[in-house]
Amino acid sequence: MNEPNTAVSLAHRLSQFSELWTQKTIARLNDYEVKLAKLKGEFVWHKHEDTDELFLVISGRLTIQLRDGDVVLEPGELFVVPRGAEHCPVADEETAVLLLEPEGVLNTGDAGGPRTKPAETLD
Amino acid sequence: MNEPNTAVSLAHRLSQFSELWTQKTIARLNDYEVKLAKLKGEFVWHKHEDTDELFLVISGRLTIQLRDGDVVLEPGELFVVPRGAEHCPVADEETAVLLLEPEGVLNTGDAGGPRTKPAETLD
Repeated sequence: MNEPNTAVSLAHRLSQFSELWTQKTIARLNDYEVKLAKLKGEFVWHKHEDTDELFLVISGRLTIQLRDGDVVLEPGELFVVPRGAEHCPVADEETAVLLLEPEGVLNTGDAGGPRTKPAETLD
Repeated sequence: MNEPNTAVSLAHRLSQFSELWTQKTIARLNDYEVKLAKLKGEFVWHKHEDTDELFLVISGRLTIQLRDGDVVLEPGELFVVPRGAEHCPVADEETAVLLLEPEGVLNTGDAGGPRTKPAETLD
């Protein structure tokens, strides 16, 4: 993690895993984690009471459903889900995203349940 | 800033300015700023004592000179400059980068001088 003087290639890192809905930590910035994930299908509605959450789409197409409407993200587009806002990501095709939030934030937020998975460090 | 339910397109935001070495804030994540900048030529050596700094290259090619070697970033590659590490970005061609760090961090860090410029919000 954050190896000295080494660039982190998003494409290379994405080639290193195939599981869906598993956040892979690729870098740290202070107490924040930069993570990658591959998404396909619909996740679960949840919220993060204590933090905003940034999504940047790298490939594919992501819809972030919010209670008051959807945000559709194409590659090269980002959106910050405000703290406390219920949201549910859905992707018709496999979609690669970069996520940014404080370390330790769980993927399912307040919802919990079987799809809860801590972020994993990508070696 | 962080308009409700609106995607932020990096390409569109980059088309809205042309000045070099001016950080443009395009989103906020908690007390962090997501910024864009266009770089060409060499900046000044400086460090940020209190924070790491993330660079993600969108187009062009950026060399981050560090006292113990260079990191070269192509599009889709990122690097986190550790807090306290002296660095000096240089780009032979015009290069677009996404920057991420806590709000209020100045571009020239501890060095100050004529190239110091606070980040500007891109409307």
